Amino acid sequence: MMSGMSAKGAGAQTLRVVQMGVGAIGREVCRLVLDRPHLRLVGAIDTDKDLVGRSLSEVLGLKEDCGVTISNDVEGTLDACEPEVVIHTTTSRLPEVVHEIEHAARHGANVVSSTEELLFPRLNRPGEAARLEVAARDNNVAILGTGVNPGFVMDTLAVLATAVCSEVELIECRRVVDAATRRQPLQLKVGAGLSVAEFNSLLAQGKMGHVGLTESIALIATALGWQWDNIDQRTEPVIARRDIRTDYVQVRTGQVAGIHNIGWATVEGRERIRLDLQMYVGAEEPMDEVVIRGKPNMTLCIPGGTPGDLATAAILVNAVPIIANAEPGLLTMLDIPIIRCRM
Amino acid sequence: MMSGMSAKGAGAQTLRVVQMGVGAIGREVCRLVLDRPHLRLVGAIDTDKDLVGRSLSEVLGLKEDCGVTISNDVEGTLDACEPEVVIHTTTSRLPEVVHEIEHAARHGANVVSSTEELLFPRLNRPGEAARLEVAARDNNVAILGTGVNPGFVMDTLAVLATAVCSEVELIECRRVVDAATRRQPLQLKVGAGLSVAEFNSLLAQGKMGHVGLTESIALIATALGWQWDNIDQRTEPVIARRDIRTDYVQVRTGQVAGIHNIGWATVEGRERIRLDLQMYVGAEEPMDEVVIRGKPNMTLCIPGGTPGDLATAAILVNAVPIIANAEPGLLTMLDIPIIRCRM
Repeated sequence: MMSGMSAKGAGAQTLRVVQMGVGAIGREVCRLVLDRPHLRLVGAIDTDKDLVGRSLSEVLGLKEDCGVTISNDVEGTLDACEPEVVIHTTTSRLPEVVHEIEHAARHGANVVSSTEELLFPRLNRPGEAARLEVAARDNNVAILGTGVNPGFVMDTLAVLATAVCSEVELIECRRVVDAATRRQPLQLKVGAGLSVAEFNSLLAQGKMGHVGLTESIALIATALGWQWDNIDQRTEPVIARRDIRTDYVQVRTGQVAGIHNIGWATVEGRERIRLDLQMYVGAEEPMDEVVIRGKPNMTLCIPGGTPGDLATAAILVNAVPIIANAEPGLLTMLDIPIIRCRM
Repeated sequence: MMSGMSAKGAGAQTLRVVQMGVGAIGREVCRLVLDRPHLRLVGAIDTDKDLVGRSLSEVLGLKEDCGVTISNDVEGTLDACEPEVVIHTTTSRLPEVVHEIEHAARHGANVVSSTEELLFPRLNRPGEAARLEVAARDNNVAILGTGVNPGFVMDTLAVLATAVCSEVELIECRRVVDAATRRQPLQLKVGAGLSVAEFNSLLAQGKMGHVGLTESIALIATALGWQWDNIDQRTEPVIARRDIRTDYVQVRTGQVAGIHNIGWATVEGRERIRLDLQMYVGAEEPMDEVVIRGKPNMTLCIPGGTPGDLATAAILVNAVPIIANAEPGLLTMLDIPIIRCRM
């Protein structure tokens, strides 16, 4: 489990990292951590029996052995590796992972997590948020949820755009993702290839759809000091108007191509934040856009959109040096300096 | 000099602000501070004899008396007003203003300044930077230089965009400003209406042109951990291809319409940062753009561009609550949480 990369990872500022979750995003995270001289990958944790006991390098398809074996023993790995930071990429819902993050904190590790509900956990998970706040403060570590969405394009970027505004009336963020360009889990998550009836059933069970839109809204509102009356969202299917085949799924005309997720906040009875997210296979003009109605009006756009999977791994890894030097506590993107790419 | 706004400015978190510099930007700052319930404008300082002794409200054209009289007595005003934050908007060059900022710090005030060289003072003004660092630490206050450019569109925004990149090869920022839409000092600063000979002479004397491009470059390079071989810039005139009349100046075909300021950083012999700023009267497509060559490539654009004067006042005022709660020291935009509009 210990890394053999001491030569590469040498230096006083080297941070010891354990990766928790070796799925698609976690593997990309591992590659980036191994590539960065100021980080040292010292352990990897997963519960998947097809992964446990295997060499991480083999799973990543690396020629050189990084010296890490994937383990399902959370406590043992944390004890043996003593990481400064755990990068956590397991699942979206906080109740399912709060104990994992708590374990990391109680072992003295700062945590950067892609768990969507952790972006602003006080909104939908106040109990878990309180637990993590205690764990962070008791152990003098920082805990942060981030990613591309939530975490960047529909929240942090919008907040930064308001820096040059003297008044903000309304914030609108739009994101269009061509799910055909994304990994298989995302294509399944948006329901590509389902019937509308299957879509509605899975959505009602909380088994699909995007998680995090309301958290993004709460982050923006909090940044601007807005006390909301109501934050809510709804998800509708996007119906395929033509047959589309991706690497993973066949979508026929009339089947579900993906999701349209709309969220909003009202403040004193008026809608002041509106997020509009479309993720479906075959979307023709992927893009991210932040529009601010205020003084001055501001539009900020990312033509082509921010690529979700690569970029999520990147922001998690880029957050590591920031979070290792942050004040202890359960933090949000509003509490820390700007995350930047540091190779 | 004391404000009569106690009702509006009530509350435990109200911050006392003194405005230093009551020019065009300073006046806009004062209007914004007066408009914000969490800030209380308690004093205003300027050396202009046409302003000293006058009611600030009268100078601002306000009907209601804000109770502040413009003073040229820096020490006396700071003693009497005991501000938590001084907003400083006097001039671009740090050696001319370092004593003003030092006075504020020695009176226990945090400082947010639009002085362009203060964005990254260690680059071109290491002596002044060292003085301010001592003043900040001795007095437990924070000092920050910011603005729209430098401070936002050609530096901070570019740094944030790298958050979602795992590798960055090259950062290019472009900004095109139609100087005809800006205040008179900016039109003069870019040389609108001069002959090319006059332009070159004033430029050589340091009496015109944009200040801050190399500071923006150093900020970006520092954010990314790049040790530069060289940071440099040059300014060329943009020649008017047609007659243009603004509210302040007449520019004839063949005269100077404005500036083209290009800056760059080389790292290990390769150009890795390039900033391209055009500010001239009659620019037809104002815009801001950040282009990152890396993994992934990223383009971020602001169609129409960020309006300089209004937006500079806004970011200074928006920085006040952030800087009042920051760690002490001579800070940069890399050290603090994201500035956001808080009304």
